[in-house]
Amino acid sequence: MKIAVMGYGTIGSGVVEVIRRNSIKLEKKAGEEIEVKYVLDLRDFPGDPMEECIVHDYKTIVEDDEVGVVVETMGGVEPAFTFVKAMLEAKKHVTTSNKALVAAKGAELLSIAKENGVNFQFEASVGGGIPIIRNINSCLTADELEEVSGILNGTTNYMLTKMATEGAEFDDVLKEAQEKGYAEKDPTADIEGHDPCRKIAILTSLVSGKTVDFEDIHCEGITKISSADFKYAKKINRSIKLLASSRKIGANYVAMVAPFMLDSTHPLYSVNDVFNAVFVHGNVLGDAMFYGSGAGSLPTASAVVADVVEMTKNKDKHLEIEWSSEKLQLLDYEDTESRFFVRTDKSEDDIRKVFGNVKLIKDVVEGEIGFITAHTREKDFEEKAKKLGIINRIRLD
Amino acid sequence: MKIAVMGYGTIGSGVVEVIRRNSIKLEKKAGEEIEVKYVLDLRDFPGDPMEECIVHDYKTIVEDDEVGVVVETMGGVEPAFTFVKAMLEAKKHVTTSNKALVAAKGAELLSIAKENGVNFQFEASVGGGIPIIRNINSCLTADELEEVSGILNGTTNYMLTKMATEGAEFDDVLKEAQEKGYAEKDPTADIEGHDPCRKIAILTSLVSGKTVDFEDIHCEGITKISSADFKYAKKINRSIKLLASSRKIGANYVAMVAPFMLDSTHPLYSVNDVFNAVFVHGNVLGDAMFYGSGAGSLPTASAVVADVVEMTKNKDKHLEIEWSSEKLQLLDYEDTESRFFVRTDKSEDDIRKVFGNVKLIKDVVEGEIGFITAHTREKDFEEKAKKLGIINRIRLD
Repeated sequence: MKIAVMGYGTIGSGVVEVIRRNSIKLEKKAGEEIEVKYVLDLRDFPGDPMEECIVHDYKTIVEDDEVGVVVETMGGVEPAFTFVKAMLEAKKHVTTSNKALVAAKGAELLSIAKENGVNFQFEASVGGGIPIIRNINSCLTADELEEVSGILNGTTNYMLTKMATEGAEFDDVLKEAQEKGYAEKDPTADIEGHDPCRKIAILTSLVSGKTVDFEDIHCEGITKISSADFKYAKKINRSIKLLASSRKIGANYVAMVAPFMLDSTHPLYSVNDVFNAVFVHGNVLGDAMFYGSGAGSLPTASAVVADVVEMTKNKDKHLEIEWSSEKLQLLDYEDTESRFFVRTDKSEDDIRKVFGNVKLIKDVVEGEIGFITAHTREKDFEEKAKKLGIINRIRLD
Repeated sequence: MKIAVMGYGTIGSGVVEVIRRNSIKLEKKAGEEIEVKYVLDLRDFPGDPMEECIVHDYKTIVEDDEVGVVVETMGGVEPAFTFVKAMLEAKKHVTTSNKALVAAKGAELLSIAKENGVNFQFEASVGGGIPIIRNINSCLTADELEEVSGILNGTTNYMLTKMATEGAEFDDVLKEAQEKGYAEKDPTADIEGHDPCRKIAILTSLVSGKTVDFEDIHCEGITKISSADFKYAKKINRSIKLLASSRKIGANYVAMVAPFMLDSTHPLYSVNDVFNAVFVHGNVLGDAMFYGSGAGSLPTASAVVADVVEMTKNKDKHLEIEWSSEKLQLLDYEDTESRFFVRTDKSEDDIRKVFGNVKLIKDVVEGEIGFITAHTREKDFEEKAKKLGIINRIRLD
């Protein structure tokens, strides 16, 4: 099997490296040798072992019938969409690590792949090396999945872990993460939760079989989390994690990205540093969890190459992935219920007047009180919080 | 697709229940309706919804061409082997939850399945509802798996969790586990590690592609673990877990079942109660972990039914699983290296004379000292331990 890699950055070069390093294993698993024939990039790479394979025009790949599988690791919706579409229409299988592309065009590209009798896969677009998409599509097939919630962003998980262990403040940790290369110069996509939002949109689409628009998902980042919140978390033995969460309620789904305080018995409680993990609840399986490297060149490439192996093994067969272009109408998160941890500088009496007989957490930070609400409709909580006047609130699992 | 379930016990009845409860989802995933036509059991079940489907002779199933998939949940090697072999030879796909059968006859049954153009699958034989076998065979295909280590026995994990949290002694916890139905009257297979030993033999066979005889695997149970060991574990912030472990060293493998003291950063550190989990290290993926219910009627049935779905989807196709009957010669564990936590009633001087300048752990239990060795060949450690005179030792991760 001759393949082409579009984009020779961190992940693309990882794909080339994995195929080189594990060639014998791959040949065994795929049933034939896998060889990189082209690498598409705007740049040249003089002296690179792949120098001779570099091409600058995607049409070179489209027009070469010898290429059966194409890997897309360029990122962004365009020109990735145009290139991928052309590859599928030329009856080449495509795998991508590009969450922006999959979140925006997943159903459309799956439909084009089907029309052309080829496959479009995207294991690496969510959770890096964690095979969560294959698990949802091909492993947990006996279950109705009632919840899929994950720590899907390594940058923010690294930052929250640092804040938890070192008592540091958000701004300092962000600066350190940027210096170490874990966070980008413009960290918005990570710290505001846009990155995990696209990923949970993809997972919810796969679970529901319809298209979830990531812009419909309520999304909060971690910018409001401070060292004071971690003092309370420590006191009540919880950890603070940015969860991208999707739950089935009756026949409907609600999805959200927000910081949560997790109980120590929650499988995601101790997922630290840059690791990712996905918690799944199936109606017969019960609780399950998948943990691993959510990013990085080789782990992400491991997921891409697993797609290459499966598509090589099934090169003459379209493997059905249920994800139609019909839009999924999510429940309004404001009508769903949560429990909240709340901090306020108001009196115990004021708290009780508004929230009733809640559990108070005192003597953690001077001049304020923490408390935990009962299950409350989001909309009602916001009203009450406004009425009382609060410093911050974090949802509980 | 008409199927037959052999054995109407805990798991068999779970399979019937899952197929009933999730019929719409299953039809979507499998591409056709799945219906239980026969249930094979020695007993009758008057008044049971499946009463009309009960048969007592497996040949009724063998001879019915309408049955395409057979589920085996009887347990034990015989008569399960005879029945399963007959089903495969009658060109019926078979899935089993029976670890004894798979550990003893896996390669042979896979070969019979291949000859007959059908499939033999066994997702539920290891890790209950955790899809670890499908992950090894179909998801982590881009990696050389260098380690597969798991908490694969819920009974002993429940007992160790109780001992850790309540400071209880082994005998008391065992009694309680038996009263609650978590441990059997004769608990040998669990507490001596025979059950996880068969499971790690299966996983090592899948990773290596050859047959691992479980009798070749060094196997220690948890009977020597006492409340004193947990006092030390707490002091050094480690947890004690019964691991079934398999590692690749160069081109060879070493496997072992034994209690380990895990560091708090180890993904298996906080896997508690009856839960199971499998840690995997891939040469490009890095660390990953799969967590879930390792036993129980519905979670195990979830894994069985996922096999039924895959085999229904691929009813005209043999799916290759690499596991030959060639025997894998494991490395002698005595020639491999470990670090040990050790307890002794000898003096600091004596300890240092035999083990050198090791890290001592004092003031945990009166009249004794704990210490942690450097990486030591197992054989050398045993000699030194004999020379010094020790109370107990537990390996470190």
